[in-house]
Amino acid sequence: MSQPDPKRVNTDDDAPYELIYWPIIPGRGEFVRLAFEEAGVPYSDIAQNTEKGFNAVKNLTATDNIGDEHNPPALAPPALKHGDLLISQTPNILLYVAPRIGLAPKEGNGLYHLNEIVLTILDGLVIELHDTHHPIAISLYYEDQKEESKRKSKYFIKDRLPKYFKYMQRVLDAKTSGEGPWLYGDSLTYADLVLFQAVDGTKFAFPKSIEALKKSGEYDGVFKLYDAVKERPNISKYLQSDRRREYSEGIWRYYPELEEE
Amino acid sequence: MSQPDPKRVNTDDDAPYELIYWPIIPGRGEFVRLAFEEAGVPYSDIAQNTEKGFNAVKNLTATDNIGDEHNPPALAPPALKHGDLLISQTPNILLYVAPRIGLAPKEGNGLYHLNEIVLTILDGLVIELHDTHHPIAISLYYEDQKEESKRKSKYFIKDRLPKYFKYMQRVLDAKTSGEGPWLYGDSLTYADLVLFQAVDGTKFAFPKSIEALKKSGEYDGVFKLYDAVKERPNISKYLQSDRRREYSEGIWRYYPELEEE
Repeated sequence: MSQPDPKRVNTDDDAPYELIYWPIIPGRGEFVRLAFEEAGVPYSDIAQNTEKGFNAVKNLTATDNIGDEHNPPALAPPALKHGDLLISQTPNILLYVAPRIGLAPKEGNGLYHLNEIVLTILDGLVIELHDTHHPIAISLYYEDQKEESKRKSKYFIKDRLPKYFKYMQRVLDAKTSGEGPWLYGDSLTYADLVLFQAVDGTKFAFPKSIEALKKSGEYDGVFKLYDAVKERPNISKYLQSDRRREYSEGIWRYYPELEEE
Repeated sequence: MSQPDPKRVNTDDDAPYELIYWPIIPGRGEFVRLAFEEAGVPYSDIAQNTEKGFNAVKNLTATDNIGDEHNPPALAPPALKHGDLLISQTPNILLYVAPRIGLAPKEGNGLYHLNEIVLTILDGLVIELHDTHHPIAISLYYEDQKEESKRKSKYFIKDRLPKYFKYMQRVLDAKTSGEGPWLYGDSLTYADLVLFQAVDGTKFAFPKSIEALKKSGEYDGVFKLYDAVKERPNISKYLQSDRRREYSEGIWRYYPELEEE
């Protein structure tokens, strides 16, 4: 075997972007969809409409998958195929795509700041929210870990949710956030889309808690940014299309008992 | 406020690397330390020896921290200061540092594959391991969530640990892993250091489970890589130095009852 030469992997800009993710649910694939939708860049969401696409997701998760000549195997979807390149892990896909489609600076160190914000939201808030309904094991049904879910949710609502909202508000209060409603600089970046989706999903799962955070008046910047993303022409069209799936299973689930006192 | 210009932030290569992390424990800072140690690149671990350094960590985590003129605030350590640039989130710090110190390719798409592997280990395996002793809330003592910890650990040992070991072994079986023991290409990268530390910490927390995985013979590549990193001259010297801290609190803890049948 010879050393893989990453420069050899063809990713010319004309190659189509193909998202490999479970169909029907928004899930983690949604962060990737929102980036392409906002940028108005064509992409195929390959599992939505074809059996072949669905099989691509299944093959990706097969326990005997060892990748191909250009790419190591992924542990889980979403993955993105661009020419011969296949990459996985949501923050990594966004890191690759965003500078190419105008949602992050192409040079300089701004991308590290954006990646830092995105990792805090995606691998912090989003993972913790998921774990409110699966605190013990993802191989168990919610019903079989309901008591632990209730206990975890109590602390999530009391401690963790305000902690993340306070963090997002502080990023907006920082000097690195510019004139507009955006997290970083004077124009929308992919970090803003990540914040939007994280807040939107949390609103579905814990509506009363989000309403309470909004009423507190302490996170006005966060909610203003949420609205500003929602009103972007391309995002607004997307949210009304049938490409935007309904919340159901997956990360964001609504179990009213998790929000009870 | 004007738009931050990321190119303006001074990070010339002569600037010192300063790690901002809690002293005494290995913790997440350890992944960053190992990279500098392997590369033989000087860095200061500012909280280890000075009160001023310790205050820098405390200031970083202050809930009224809104960053500075160049940088947004971080939610939590580790952070890395390099010239005027301050960045946080372990996989992000490594993404910035590794190509600069010879532990990742400087160009091409290989860095996205490395980042994908690192995110899977760091924001997958390491977070899940941490949650085995804090499944309900990090604001509670272990003793106050011990029953849930036992239940979660059972599934972690049975399902999750083998899943991650199988994933790491598959990456080693992939065509993108070269001749040597390394995860990607023919030479050591920062992903190998991340695997080493994740396995080493897991071995401390769940010694019997790691021994069983080793004996199964199914993950020989993973254990060979672990040994190969441990024997690197710079790493070997580091592990014997007093800069390498003992495991105690933090992510990797040893509670024998979590490994009982």
